[in-house]
Amino acid sequence: MSVMPIDKYRPVQTVALHDRQWPNRVIDRAPIWCSVDLRDGNQALIEPMGTDRKQRMWDLLVRLGFKEIEVGFPAASQTDFDFVRHLIDNDLIPDGVTVQVLTQSREELIRRTFDAIRGAKRAIVHLYNSTSTLQRRVVFGLDRDGITEIAVRGTKLIKELVPTVPETEIVFQYSPESFTGTELDYARDICGAVLDAWQPTPQHKAILNLPATVEMATPNVYADQIEWCHRNFARRDSFVLSVHPHNDRGTGIAATELALMAGADRVEGTLFGNGERTGNVDIVTLGLNMFTQGVNPELDLHDVGDIVRTVEYCNQLPVHPRHPYGGELVFTAFSGSHQDAIKKGFAAMEKSNSGLWEVPYLPIDPQDIGCSYEAVIRVNSQSGKGGVAYLLLTDHGLDLPRKLQVEFSQVIQKLADETGKEISSKVIWHEFEQEYLVPGRVEVIGHTTLPTGRGERHIEAQVRIDGVEKTIRGEGNGPLNAFVDALKREIDIDVDIADYREHALRSGSDSSAATYVEAQIGGKTLFGVGIDSNIVMASLKAVAGAVNRGLRKAAA
Amino acid sequence: MSVMPIDKYRPVQTVALHDRQWPNRVIDRAPIWCSVDLRDGNQALIEPMGTDRKQRMWDLLVRLGFKEIEVGFPAASQTDFDFVRHLIDNDLIPDGVTVQVLTQSREELIRRTFDAIRGAKRAIVHLYNSTSTLQRRVVFGLDRDGITEIAVRGTKLIKELVPTVPETEIVFQYSPESFTGTELDYARDICGAVLDAWQPTPQHKAILNLPATVEMATPNVYADQIEWCHRNFARRDSFVLSVHPHNDRGTGIAATELALMAGADRVEGTLFGNGERTGNVDIVTLGLNMFTQGVNPELDLHDVGDIVRTVEYCNQLPVHPRHPYGGELVFTAFSGSHQDAIKKGFAAMEKSNSGLWEVPYLPIDPQDIGCSYEAVIRVNSQSGKGGVAYLLLTDHGLDLPRKLQVEFSQVIQKLADETGKEISSKVIWHEFEQEYLVPGRVEVIGHTTLPTGRGERHIEAQVRIDGVEKTIRGEGNGPLNAFVDALKREIDIDVDIADYREHALRSGSDSSAATYVEAQIGGKTLFGVGIDSNIVMASLKAVAGAVNRGLRKAAA
Repeated sequence: MSVMPIDKYRPVQTVALHDRQWPNRVIDRAPIWCSVDLRDGNQALIEPMGTDRKQRMWDLLVRLGFKEIEVGFPAASQTDFDFVRHLIDNDLIPDGVTVQVLTQSREELIRRTFDAIRGAKRAIVHLYNSTSTLQRRVVFGLDRDGITEIAVRGTKLIKELVPTVPETEIVFQYSPESFTGTELDYARDICGAVLDAWQPTPQHKAILNLPATVEMATPNVYADQIEWCHRNFARRDSFVLSVHPHNDRGTGIAATELALMAGADRVEGTLFGNGERTGNVDIVTLGLNMFTQGVNPELDLHDVGDIVRTVEYCNQLPVHPRHPYGGELVFTAFSGSHQDAIKKGFAAMEKSNSGLWEVPYLPIDPQDIGCSYEAVIRVNSQSGKGGVAYLLLTDHGLDLPRKLQVEFSQVIQKLADETGKEISSKVIWHEFEQEYLVPGRVEVIGHTTLPTGRGERHIEAQVRIDGVEKTIRGEGNGPLNAFVDALKREIDIDVDIADYREHALRSGSDSSAATYVEAQIGGKTLFGVGIDSNIVMASLKAVAGAVNRGLRKAAA
Repeated sequence: MSVMPIDKYRPVQTVALHDRQWPNRVIDRAPIWCSVDLRDGNQALIEPMGTDRKQRMWDLLVRLGFKEIEVGFPAASQTDFDFVRHLIDNDLIPDGVTVQVLTQSREELIRRTFDAIRGAKRAIVHLYNSTSTLQRRVVFGLDRDGITEIAVRGTKLIKELVPTVPETEIVFQYSPESFTGTELDYARDICGAVLDAWQPTPQHKAILNLPATVEMATPNVYADQIEWCHRNFARRDSFVLSVHPHNDRGTGIAATELALMAGADRVEGTLFGNGERTGNVDIVTLGLNMFTQGVNPELDLHDVGDIVRTVEYCNQLPVHPRHPYGGELVFTAFSGSHQDAIKKGFAAMEKSNSGLWEVPYLPIDPQDIGCSYEAVIRVNSQSGKGGVAYLLLTDHGLDLPRKLQVEFSQVIQKLADETGKEISSKVIWHEFEQEYLVPGRVEVIGHTTLPTGRGERHIEAQVRIDGVEKTIRGEGNGPLNAFVDALKREIDIDVDIADYREHALRSGSDSSAATYVEAQIGGKTLFGVGIDSNIVMASLKAVAGAVNRGLRKAAA
């Protein structure tokens, strides 16, 4: 085993936070959402969106109910500039939706930014500069005061330019970029200096956005940082505390949730987490996590498939099959015991009718986000009987008795083991037909039953035996027993009915019945299945089916 | 906006945990890792692994240094049974590696499980049954005692069967499946009853595995649950506390990390997080998260590419481009300011030579996990000068002056805006050659310089002007000025050299020099670039290059 160079790395500084509050909190309302798909997401694409893709993304974001949308870095990119102008000049920004534009703290960039937003009703001008210890040293070669000066200068220029766009309400946002690598007291000082320059009020708040530009620690550390800022920053009533988490350690969702518990008011993220490197935090997952806790996400996420398709088109990147909520496999149970539990959960919910979603292994009702139950149960070599039974029930209305489930699942298990492939519902049905429903040596064509004098019934059944039509006769305490009697007399087969079940078919256009008989034939226990619109015919067919299977196995 | 049915859902119960400890902890050592790729991972595949894929996965897991590997559910699947036998019968289990097999608490399954492991040196027999409130009610229809009875009965049978495999050291593991939906006091009681039946000791510990079978809450709640169990379960010195987190809410990594802080000793997960639905927790990410904090992950993760390829082959599922550490885009910076900072970070590290990894936007050195720096800087329409400059430096050894970076990046920006595509390093080089290095109206062929009496130099340069070879002559305080003088005399071009830089080429087989001149020509500032093995020739070519560009632009 090769030794990895662990000495190159040091643990991050933790936060000395006394009387920590966030672990006692729960999330009970949605934050203000800001989509950065068109900026942070877009800049991280191998092929950034052109106008068509940007327009589709914009339309989707508006449809989902985002009220704040970062649309680009117009001073740095002509494409971004043109798109912002396109939105404004064509009056495409609905009432209640605010566009946000990013800028660095350089005069020409800030002026150009104002050119981009001129004419909008409301815009968030988002100023950032990098504040981390590392970047101050290696990128800028400046001390704290020098970095603060950059931020304050930009803030003042933006304040100066506000009167030049009188038709636009300007909301000011400042990000100490690389916040997670910044000393907390310095983050407090630079944000304080910026707000001193801006002078926000509780009526006209600024936004302070504290990004996990790089996710550097376990998510509790980010939560501690946010709680520290929430408790120690000046003018807390005059700014919205925003977070902008990335996902370098795969804990972006968690960091965001814990940050909300710690005092954050607002989240910047993207749909399914596109963004630089490992991406921004995924707002779809955040929103649906809230939804599963009975918290209104304040976003319309009822059609996840639509979101997946649009996002994949715009970003030209896939949503992973196991991506929470959106992946094609996330509602699928291949495990037999899971399938069995899900089946029972559905049945219990139907019975209880409480309105609460309570199904094992499914934290959300797939139908609530536009998915069908079809994807839930799929069958492979690891599945066992539950999934097979479920698919026969949902797709064909057949509610197999448990022992028949066991019998038939061995057929499917063998097939799955041999092929190593997933077994589709169609293949399961084909195998079921081959095993239970194809004609055999004994075929029932029709029947007449009559009461006899002795409290029993007499049957005359028209059958085809080895292709030869004939009428056979027997007696018993019901048509089934009478038919068994006739078979014994006619073709000398001993059939002993051990169990019998019948139900109306729950799907299909005609109201057929399905009958299952468990029979002892030649010392073996075998099931037979009969389906017919006449319940007696269904029973006779089931018995004939069991007989045929017995004869087939005896011959094999 | 359509209203989502939030009333169907209720928040999960939180834990009343007094004197909570885990938020004050950091992870300072690796847990015991157990891979469940071949069981939980495998059962969730559309096409479960055949023997070849299982063997490759097994080999990879052993290579990475896993000491505990769950190899299947042999009593439920013939394929799993055969694979366990294959490993044992062919002596494929290295010393120090323990296989683990899953079983439900049913006599025939437990007996069959023992058939599967017979002959192994050491095996973990992993018994589970489902304990959640919901499953007790809707799946089993049993009260707490009934569910406990199932677990204890299985435990006792396993204890009875131990002497039947005298050559095998049996380690017992119990999972109260659906633990996250189980009341904590009941989890304590059933685990207590199981351990009472098993009678582990500090020398022969059992494993209690507390799965987040379904991830149901923010990850701090799981941490609270684990800390509660860590502090309240009996016989704490006689069991290993294991966690088995799933990822339904996208916080599986976080839940695991917080659980480790809360007292867990062991983690069950998979490579890149394959597993039921949204998957199991991803052990590669967990391990590399530790690595970036200077903690030895106790796994050999130095070749992530190898892991990705093998996992994709075995699972027939992709690793997402943005998957932490393993995705193809996770080290890529497209943003110009990020690229610039990374470039400066590399330079600062080279200078400081501290041995510590400190590069902005890169939480890990890609080379430490087998990735090259090639993927780090890629250029699209959002990039700006940093990436272009970086690629010219790393791929062609050209260290462009900042103002030349700005000039040339506009060429690339225009191309990126027009095409909307990523611009490869190859295309950047082609554009650079077209812009700066192709022959123009003035071509330098050779030169001779001589000192004059006046402390200046006289130059005789062989040039080709509009295809016509000639010798031009001039004087100046160096060859550059002398050449400028000659150009003025010969073709009446006023060139004013504003700046001049030269460096040896840092790559390439021959030791050439690159010269950059910033020149004023016809009122315009233009750069010229010259590359030659002779430093004077490189300078003259740079001047000629600037002149040619000036003439070209004047003609355009």
